[in-house]
Amino acid sequence: MNRINKLKQAAVKQNKPIRFAIFNPANITYLTNSTGAAGLFIPGEGETILFASAVNYEYLKSEIKGFDVQRLKLGEKMIDKLKQYISAEKISVDSLPIESWRWLSQVAGGEENLELINNLICELRKVKDEQEIMAIKEACKIADIGIQTAQETIQAGLSEKDLAAEVEYAMRKAGSEGVAFESIIASGVCCAFPHGASMNKIISKGDLVTVDIGAIVNFYRSDITRTFIVGKATDKQKKIYETVKLAHQKAYEAIKPQVSAKEVDYAGRQVIEKAGLGEFFVHNLGHGVGLEVHEYPVLSPNSRDILEVGNVVTDEPGVYIPGFCGVRIEDTVVVTKDGAEKLTKAPYASLS
Amino acid sequence: MNRINKLKQAAVKQNKPIRFAIFNPANITYLTNSTGAAGLFIPGEGETILFASAVNYEYLKSEIKGFDVQRLKLGEKMIDKLKQYISAEKISVDSLPIESWRWLSQVAGGEENLELINNLICELRKVKDEQEIMAIKEACKIADIGIQTAQETIQAGLSEKDLAAEVEYAMRKAGSEGVAFESIIASGVCCAFPHGASMNKIISKGDLVTVDIGAIVNFYRSDITRTFIVGKATDKQKKIYETVKLAHQKAYEAIKPQVSAKEVDYAGRQVIEKAGLGEFFVHNLGHGVGLEVHEYPVLSPNSRDILEVGNVVTDEPGVYIPGFCGVRIEDTVVVTKDGAEKLTKAPYASLS
Repeated sequence: MNRINKLKQAAVKQNKPIRFAIFNPANITYLTNSTGAAGLFIPGEGETILFASAVNYEYLKSEIKGFDVQRLKLGEKMIDKLKQYISAEKISVDSLPIESWRWLSQVAGGEENLELINNLICELRKVKDEQEIMAIKEACKIADIGIQTAQETIQAGLSEKDLAAEVEYAMRKAGSEGVAFESIIASGVCCAFPHGASMNKIISKGDLVTVDIGAIVNFYRSDITRTFIVGKATDKQKKIYETVKLAHQKAYEAIKPQVSAKEVDYAGRQVIEKAGLGEFFVHNLGHGVGLEVHEYPVLSPNSRDILEVGNVVTDEPGVYIPGFCGVRIEDTVVVTKDGAEKLTKAPYASLS
Repeated sequence: MNRINKLKQAAVKQNKPIRFAIFNPANITYLTNSTGAAGLFIPGEGETILFASAVNYEYLKSEIKGFDVQRLKLGEKMIDKLKQYISAEKISVDSLPIESWRWLSQVAGGEENLELINNLICELRKVKDEQEIMAIKEACKIADIGIQTAQETIQAGLSEKDLAAEVEYAMRKAGSEGVAFESIIASGVCCAFPHGASMNKIISKGDLVTVDIGAIVNFYRSDITRTFIVGKATDKQKKIYETVKLAHQKAYEAIKPQVSAKEVDYAGRQVIEKAGLGEFFVHNLGHGVGLEVHEYPVLSPNSRDILEVGNVVTDEPGVYIPGFCGVRIEDTVVVTKDGAEKLTKAPYASLS
């Protein structure tokens, strides 16, 4: 079944309007396998309308099949064009900033004619189909190449930024459509900043270096982290590294269909807590990956998600000790009938 | 005067609340010169509170001075934390998606206690100070290096993607913090897709190749486009190129303080219209550039903006003939006391 029909079916089940205005770029890509449209209008019956600014119109008209591609004139907005399609019937809307929401409310004859259904699309996007998993697999292969490049390139004297340059170049040459997110390269004490992006800091001997990168293939993303040591690790570094690695492994083993996402978080978190490092694991164990680098399901202590076959999630425990160092190990993992499969496969650094 | 005080002053002038909740990442960066915070609360008096998830807390606490950096616990949201700061008084809000807006409305005791003031911040961000212009200048220098690399690398047989890889690598090595936007490399008939991103198409002899790229320095972006020919241009290609180049020049000459942005658009557009190519210039003449690649002022036929000293805008006319070719020439330009100055300086291709 195509994705638009899936969405309609989901809406019917939840008693929501089956006429949709879709604005979120990732949702548009999910429903059309294209980028660049300003938005979609899905009528109850008949062809979906894809609105495109003149800048993207020719491309979309020639490349995207099965849609009624309509051109927005210079200065014309999709919400204004919607007027002619919105009757007294309610429509479902995925998401909008408050200013645009107010404008659409006027066009629709009142806020009561709009219903928010972003969660319906999130639920659909949570379960990847074969085509989506294929794209993510390719993106993971390319991210593995990025990690291999990092491993071969890291040395004392190199700046974090220059390491980022080499890694991103390798992924681009391997076919990535860009970076899945701002590459995070953090060395030494900066490793203790889990999301410190690549800076001018020079990598030194004895540094742990966290490399958190991702690639894009056919709009789908991958996400991987490896932590390397420059030279020889101290016993304290080794202890932290081995703790995170074990947490990563235990969480991976917990990933199965019908398991609650918070149990997976707990499987990793308790290893770190038992090692007395719980206060330094300051983020969730993982998140869904797909058209966006952070999507559902969420693997956190309070998550309500239950894992299903086709979920693609990260497993990424970390320990960050301010002023000392940080370690994170992350793979992109697909939930399968039998449990789980790692889609990123770059070897883990050995610190011993 | 610091930017937060400027914002308060602007709010006073327009009779808006001088207590602010700020959520837009670019606005946060503008007001704090940092990234990674979940949001700001600016009280009427006293220190601004910067809310940070645990992932970014240590970094922001150690690097960002003059703010009360508060840590959000795992799973805790800024909107919930705001409860304790919001009394019966109204607050100004920059922007939010509708779902979060509804949530904040509840926290604030009703929508009537929130006032949207994003336009105030846009107005401030429109006029760049010395520090901002310095960063944009650096980002422009790096974009020039990217263009030089493109010029040296373009040849028949190379894919658009591989050209993007080389250009992005050169900018990264020159110090860019990433790409300012998805690089657009479009060759041959694909040049007629103004915003077609870099694809697997192979560049051929006789192709026009549009290279639209940007760099980032200290969070500020640049934006430049050059169009090259592989081999020898035909007379028709030359005619289109020279028309766009003249339009670009005429628009540049029109950029001055106190001139309306739509006049600048018209100065370029009329050159293309007189050449009988008006229907193929399908976008605005330009846009502001700064923390975001598209910001105010807008240089369009319907713009209400009046140019001021310190505006940084693009001048980027283009002609796109479906099935044949496309040409765009773009510079990032700062409005000065005496007129304008190009910040991107890469030479224009010569097609003759």
